[in-house]
Amino acid sequence: MIITFKHSVTPEMQQAFQSKFREMHKQVVMSGLRMAVVGLDHCQFSDQESEVIEQIVSETPSYVQASRSFHPDNSTVQLPHSKISADTFTIMAGPCSVESEDHIRRMAEIARLGGASVLRGGAFKPRTSPYTFQGLGEKGLRYLRKAADENGMDVITEVMDETHVALVAEYTDVMQIGARNMQNFSLLKSVGKTSVPVALKRGMAASIDDLLNASEYIASGGNTDIILIERGIRTFDHKYTRNTFDVAAVPVLQKLTHYPVIVDPSHAVGFRDLVAPAAYAGTAAGASGMIVEIHDHPEKAVSDGPQALKPNDYLTMTKRAAALRKCMESWEN
Amino acid sequence: MIITFKHSVTPEMQQAFQSKFREMHKQVVMSGLRMAVVGLDHCQFSDQESEVIEQIVSETPSYVQASRSFHPDNSTVQLPHSKISADTFTIMAGPCSVESEDHIRRMAEIARLGGASVLRGGAFKPRTSPYTFQGLGEKGLRYLRKAADENGMDVITEVMDETHVALVAEYTDVMQIGARNMQNFSLLKSVGKTSVPVALKRGMAASIDDLLNASEYIASGGNTDIILIERGIRTFDHKYTRNTFDVAAVPVLQKLTHYPVIVDPSHAVGFRDLVAPAAYAGTAAGASGMIVEIHDHPEKAVSDGPQALKPNDYLTMTKRAAALRKCMESWEN
Amino acid sequence: MIITFKHSVTPEMQQAFQSKFREMHKQVVMSGLRMAVVGLDHCQFSDQESEVIEQIVSETPSYVQASRSFHPDNSTVQLPHSKISADTFTIMAGPCSVESEDHIRRMAEIARLGGASVLRGGAFKPRTSPYTFQGLGEKGLRYLRKAADENGMDVITEVMDETHVALVAEYTDVMQIGARNMQNFSLLKSVGKTSVPVALKRGMAASIDDLLNASEYIASGGNTDIILIERGIRTFDHKYTRNTFDVAAVPVLQKLTHYPVIVDPSHAVGFRDLVAPAAYAGTAAGASGMIVEIHDHPEKAVSDGPQALKPNDYLTMTKRAAALRKCMESWEN
Amino acid sequence: MIITFKHSVTPEMQQAFQSKFREMHKQVVMSGLRMAVVGLDHCQFSDQESEVIEQIVSETPSYVQASRSFHPDNSTVQLPHSKISADTFTIMAGPCSVESEDHIRRMAEIARLGGASVLRGGAFKPRTSPYTFQGLGEKGLRYLRKAADENGMDVITEVMDETHVALVAEYTDVMQIGARNMQNFSLLKSVGKTSVPVALKRGMAASIDDLLNASEYIASGGNTDIILIERGIRTFDHKYTRNTFDVAAVPVLQKLTHYPVIVDPSHAVGFRDLVAPAAYAGTAAGASGMIVEIHDHPEKAVSDGPQALKPNDYLTMTKRAAALRKCMESWEN
Repeated sequence: MIITFKHSVTPEMQQAFQSKFREMHKQVVMSGLRMAVVGLDHCQFSDQESEVIEQIVSETPSYVQASRSFHPDNSTVQLPHSKISADTFTIMAGPCSVESEDHIRRMAEIARLGGASVLRGGAFKPRTSPYTFQGLGEKGLRYLRKAADENGMDVITEVMDETHVALVAEYTDVMQIGARNMQNFSLLKSVGKTSVPVALKRGMAASIDDLLNASEYIASGGNTDIILIERGIRTFDHKYTRNTFDVAAVPVLQKLTHYPVIVDPSHAVGFRDLVAPAAYAGTAAGASGMIVEIHDHPEKAVSDGPQALKPNDYLTMTKRAAALRKCMESWEN
Repeated sequence: MIITFKHSVTPEMQQAFQSKFREMHKQVVMSGLRMAVVGLDHCQFSDQESEVIEQIVSETPSYVQASRSFHPDNSTVQLPHSKISADTFTIMAGPCSVESEDHIRRMAEIARLGGASVLRGGAFKPRTSPYTFQGLGEKGLRYLRKAADENGMDVITEVMDETHVALVAEYTDVMQIGARNMQNFSLLKSVGKTSVPVALKRGMAASIDDLLNASEYIASGGNTDIILIERGIRTFDHKYTRNTFDVAAVPVLQKLTHYPVIVDPSHAVGFRDLVAPAAYAGTAAGASGMIVEIHDHPEKAVSDGPQALKPNDYLTMTKRAAALRKCMESWEN
Repeated sequence: MIITFKHSVTPEMQQAFQSKFREMHKQVVMSGLRMAVVGLDHCQFSDQESEVIEQIVSETPSYVQASRSFHPDNSTVQLPHSKISADTFTIMAGPCSVESEDHIRRMAEIARLGGASVLRGGAFKPRTSPYTFQGLGEKGLRYLRKAADENGMDVITEVMDETHVALVAEYTDVMQIGARNMQNFSLLKSVGKTSVPVALKRGMAASIDDLLNASEYIASGGNTDIILIERGIRTFDHKYTRNTFDVAAVPVLQKLTHYPVIVDPSHAVGFRDLVAPAAYAGTAAGASGMIVEIHDHPEKAVSDGPQALKPNDYLTMTKRAAALRKCMESWEN
Repeated sequence: MIITFKHSVTPEMQQAFQSKFREMHKQVVMSGLRMAVVGLDHCQFSDQESEVIEQIVSETPSYVQASRSFHPDNSTVQLPHSKISADTFTIMAGPCSVESEDHIRRMAEIARLGGASVLRGGAFKPRTSPYTFQGLGEKGLRYLRKAADENGMDVITEVMDETHVALVAEYTDVMQIGARNMQNFSLLKSVGKTSVPVALKRGMAASIDDLLNASEYIASGGNTDIILIERGIRTFDHKYTRNTFDVAAVPVLQKLTHYPVIVDPSHAVGFRDLVAPAAYAGTAAGASGMIVEIHDHPEKAVSDGPQALKPNDYLTMTKRAAALRKCMESWEN
């Protein structure tokens, strides 16, 4: 239940409400004159209490913690070497999969050269078919961590499985939840109990509300270090692009939530020559950064080769995206 | 790699191929002159071997075990009280959630009365928002099992989580994988290692190929007791129906795979008054059965009330669907 | 504006309202205590008038004429040899295009044999590419009419173009508006001024509301002899079917409107072997009939060969659909 | 049929081919060693001819004139005051509908102030419901032309109807074909016979191929002054945006065709506060310009008020888009 108080309410009265519901083991979120009480389905207020309630806004709160109406200021996700928030621009780059110790090191160097402060790479891979490469597992995590450390970078990598959360958490700075797991609620609850920041990818058929509700599974466990990723949705047209890059989701999400929003142009379009224009579009739409796939020999990549940028194209792209971002930063003045 | 042999190949030669690849720890599936070897990316055949190979059909096999080309005959899923196959028609019915011991017993009686041989009911519920009812857990499983046993019925219930597989398997005859978990590959692998039949629901944005590839994760673990469920897909029009019931998926799947296909009209349409026409449509399209939600007081249901059929409407619907099915059975003669 | 009157209103008062608005050249639709006045954006009622108004239901009426709330009884489209309504079942069959005088005659005979009372065939063809067959034009209309007359059948054929309306109207019993022209408002207005029944196909991306609003363009010209056709919508999955057959649209439309609804399984699925199951599904969902493409040599058809049923398959399909329908007719008793 | 010639072919031989097919009344398009002959379904070449043919690329040419493979250089649409091509950036702005002589004049002044060289405004409006404002007709065209002339601007306005083509052509510099009419083939053919440039909007469910095929209807009539407009497609998510802005369609189209591509952020997103970010995204993706709706009192607009930018927001947006474009122009060096 979401309620708003009358202006006549005193801080003591509000405090009393809050204490009462917490004693009932309800989750309570307060913001100014607005209060959400989770699980208070059939609320009984005393006459005295009713007098200070202005309105019952909604019987069923959904994404309370994610909502700007409870958290008007932009939130920031702070990593050792990166800060992700509305007024920063962070590049996360690396290969789709960690392929070898040597390869991820080379990729980290290139990523860094293009301005990335976060290294991506999959050690556990969600693949449509069971007969394709499934990732190097813990060995991959080790290589990835080492390559990042050597280059003064943070790590982002996917966790696919509740049973791997503790293991992945040991090696990474950000745990990524993939599009196919966006509504794997057990996994969401599990990462919500850690203190590792979580990057949540929008599912292929997930509405904006679905994405924010999924984030609430993480937040309701206590972990609100959340980054949202727009990575394309599935539509009727997938001949020339793998998905449809929903670039307007960036400002839509920024209006509804305080979590930072970044874009994944690689998965959104799926073909190398379209990644740069999509990255520029995402930048110009106001994203707080991007996550992008790179590979020195994409034709030999163990996964997603067709969408990986080659080093030179990546370096050109990031230089241009940075120029766009710089141009935009002057707008605020 | 999928290859076909020339007609001149001898059984001994085929056997030799198979042994060789198995020694290389490859998964091999044979069917007549067709052979799939999983993970044989750059196959090197001796000159002698090459001579008996007619054609390399595909470098990358995807859903081999699901495919009719490797398993031309319809497969059957046998439960204690039900048989699900191309030429049977099975009704699975029950409430969305197990609500209480008493309630699930009453629902089981009604389900049985309408001809259902499988009782459905959720004990672990995947809900869009974390602030809604999440299921009774093991207690729910116990009530469900008891209600089914008292009525000579089988049980189907959802497993959402790898860590619950063993627990759920203890109580159920069929483990359901929900639409949101269709590409939760860890969960699929986990149920694939059990010997409990699995009912796999099509994801909201899953193509037919995605569904069959997901089934392959289960089958590649050794469990081929698989039922596929069409339950509606997400499209641009969701004002008057919750999803778009893709009824043509029934004959499409029956052409591509030997697994039985059933329909879920409740989730497909999402509103009570549309469930019966959708159930008739699915029946007439040739489904091997249906799974349907019922509730005696839908307005008080803890989940999905709007789509639950009331007892009388359920009884009318099943009588009519049975009449349609009977009409169709005379066609084969 | 849609208003409802209080029970205290007298017939004379209602009459006075109606006269007043008609004098203001407004279109008025009445049904019991409900009245819609088109274009009455900022209505000013006298105090006396206000007293008998119960409620302003909506400022902006949309599909008033199509709505069941203004026309509770099912409407019937009567053709010389066919009657299309909620409680009849009409088969419309024929080739995609009229190919020759001889061919359409042969197809008419087969269509008739399968129980069709309406002959379909395109003389003006809307083709995705300008470099494909565009139809025989008036010659085609002549052949079509003759073939129908010789077999005691009605004619349905597509009109693509405002400038052809008068010509097509001369030859046909039903003018079909194709999916691509569903929101060609000039064309809709134009057929709305004739007295020839119109069969309106749902557009590929048209919501249910869009379809009903499009029908309103026809009805507001005075022609309410309207048949609605569900023919599949465009979704993310079009590998194994050309469109997604939205079979639940049949009961949805029947709830919202009094116009008869038929299905087009040929365009919905696009492949011959799926047409029959889709036709059965549409029949079982309660459609008032179907329109289906047939061809004796589909591999040589000038258009849409892959989805045309061969004569024998058509005859089997119609026999079975008729059996399903007969089974359903016993339900009402 | 599309063929490629061997390098050994002489210009005389190519010429002879061309003459032969033109005599057969076939449409022929040549580009280097590549030749498309429309409607040559079962081509019979003499032995001598066959000798110089390298390959039959395709039996069924589709968008030949639109294709870069027949027209590698970017094409330019030249208007009196504007030039639309790959390396220019044109702003088209104005109200959704022409509302009055005075209003369109004021809007033209604001549009011009923001750098627009083309004035938009609808005189014939395609509206979902027949009971909403349908446009001022010829009077609207007159006002629009006058307002543009007074401000040294070009005019773009929609033509909905074959019978209006000549009338609209008299007043406008660019004829716009709306999304709902993208496959109104009669209308496309009709504007294809004029010499007025045509701006073709992508339909709500139109694939990239559909759009290019639709353009071919215009081009095959002789008019290749074509501009393509991405304006959002219909997807499952339309709660916070009216459509899904497919920004990646800009580089996709630029790869496939030589026609200039612009974006329509207003219709793509449908809500004022999202128009600017979408406009920036389209600019950064490389569009050749944009068409945008403005209104001084959007709450009183006769159509599409919610998506119209207010004058100040429009002026800020265009200044910023121009800055982004300028930033991008430095990239080529």
